[in-house]
Amino acid sequence: MSKIGRTIWAIPEGYIPSHSTSSDRALVSHEAACILNAGDRTTELRIMVYFADRDPVGPYRVTVPARRTLHLRFNDLRDPAPVPRDTDYASVIESDVPIVVQHTRLDSRDPDISLLSTLAFPAE
Amino acid sequence: MSKIGRTIWAIPEGYIPSHSTSSDRALVSHEAACILNAGDRTTELRIMVYFADRDPVGPYRVTVPARRTLHLRFNDLRDPAPVPRDTDYASVIESDVPIVVQHTRLDSRDPDISLLSTLAFPAE
Amino acid sequence: MSKIGRTIWAIPEGYIPSHSTSSDRALVSHEAACILNAGDRTTELRIMVYFADRDPVGPYRVTVPARRTLHLRFNDLRDPAPVPRDTDYASVIESDVPIVVQHTRLDSRDPDISLLSTLAFPAE
Amino acid sequence: MSKIGRTIWAIPEGYIPSHSTSSDRALVSHEAACILNAGDRTTELRIMVYFADRDPVGPYRVTVPARRTLHLRFNDLRDPAPVPRDTDYASVIESDVPIVVQHTRLDSRDPDISLLSTLAFPAE
Repeated sequence: MSKIGRTIWAIPEGYIPSHSTSSDRALVSHEAACILNAGDRTTELRIMVYFADRDPVGPYRVTVPARRTLHLRFNDLRDPAPVPRDTDYASVIESDVPIVVQHTRLDSRDPDISLLSTLAFPAE
Repeated sequence: MSKIGRTIWAIPEGYIPSHSTSSDRALVSHEAACILNAGDRTTELRIMVYFADRDPVGPYRVTVPARRTLHLRFNDLRDPAPVPRDTDYASVIESDVPIVVQHTRLDSRDPDISLLSTLAFPAE
Repeated sequence: MSKIGRTIWAIPEGYIPSHSTSSDRALVSHEAACILNAGDRTTELRIMVYFADRDPVGPYRVTVPARRTLHLRFNDLRDPAPVPRDTDYASVIESDVPIVVQHTRLDSRDPDISLLSTLAFPAE
Repeated sequence: MSKIGRTIWAIPEGYIPSHSTSSDRALVSHEAACILNAGDRTTELRIMVYFADRDPVGPYRVTVPARRTLHLRFNDLRDPAPVPRDTDYASVIESDVPIVVQHTRLDSRDPDISLLSTLAFPAE
């Protein structure tokens, strides 16, 4: 299983609501890049975040071990800067080895959660 | 990052509910094409909107600067004509340079919002 | 715009809830194949519906004119047989000319609607 | 219809909520891989499940007859081990013959259900 995926992925949609009706980590409004590294080698990701009206920020660096998945919340990114809330953004994820990326948002601005998900775009 | 994406994208689903339970811009029912221009050159988009029972309308012209994302709401298109509410439509987006397009609807006909999202179809 | 899309599309997910909390056509639980024929020629679709435990049914025949979109509800298919409710199914859509297909469900079993959407799989 | 699809599919997102507000099978929180085998031969699937912090589990073995669809719930997998609840996972599905795979979650942690769906990633 060492060749599943691609090395560059893009996610045009990004938006983290500042508001949640729950403080339970599972139910706090969040956006995630779900990453699968099915291969035999650890990978170092480089993530760039793009905005509507200012320069991109990054790269954020994240490690995904071999034969592991990481459901990375954009909410948790800190270095070089947190991802602002209530702000449109987009992202590009580069990896040393082939990975697969799926984008998910859990939105709990309402008492009832809402979900969206799609594969990211495999650029290379 | 100058080559991420494609130059023609299609979104077969389109439907803007006329009704929303909120007047907050973030929560008004809307459909968006989230566009990432990760490259080094500004792009001019040409958007055609297709209907079930009449000729297509467009092109709508929209600019996305280099290294920026635009979360374009179909609700906001005005020229040559607003996109009608409560009406099935589809769209094709052409760009001078490679971009990535993701389609999202936030539906707030109910007091509780509902979300859908998918990558658009990369035609070329 | 005569070459946007593919001629065979597959949608593995299919499920029409028999229950809806609304009788408004817009809000009745439904599954749709949103089809864009951006080209210059009318197309005749042939749709096969697959089940878990019996032979496929079809072809259903549907026409989509040139430069039009059709948001086809599986609920509305009648000939050769209606699509059963509360039953897992899948579908394959064949077209004479290139089209683009997106799959959407509006689920109103609850008082609050829920939505899902994804591009169909372009087989050819 | 013997060649629709691919033989390896990846789903990076996986999460089965332990909580549901309904005990009706249709409305219990679940994750499904909706699989279409439109071809003429039965296929034997091999499913590997990946985690964030331990070795993958599998292969789970599942059969899909020719010209049938299977909406497989990860909740129902038992051998070699149930898929843990409230835990991030990912999956890779291998098939003897071409299939198409779509990923769906129905989340009923709230009284009102929420849905997500996307095509899986066709690796080969």
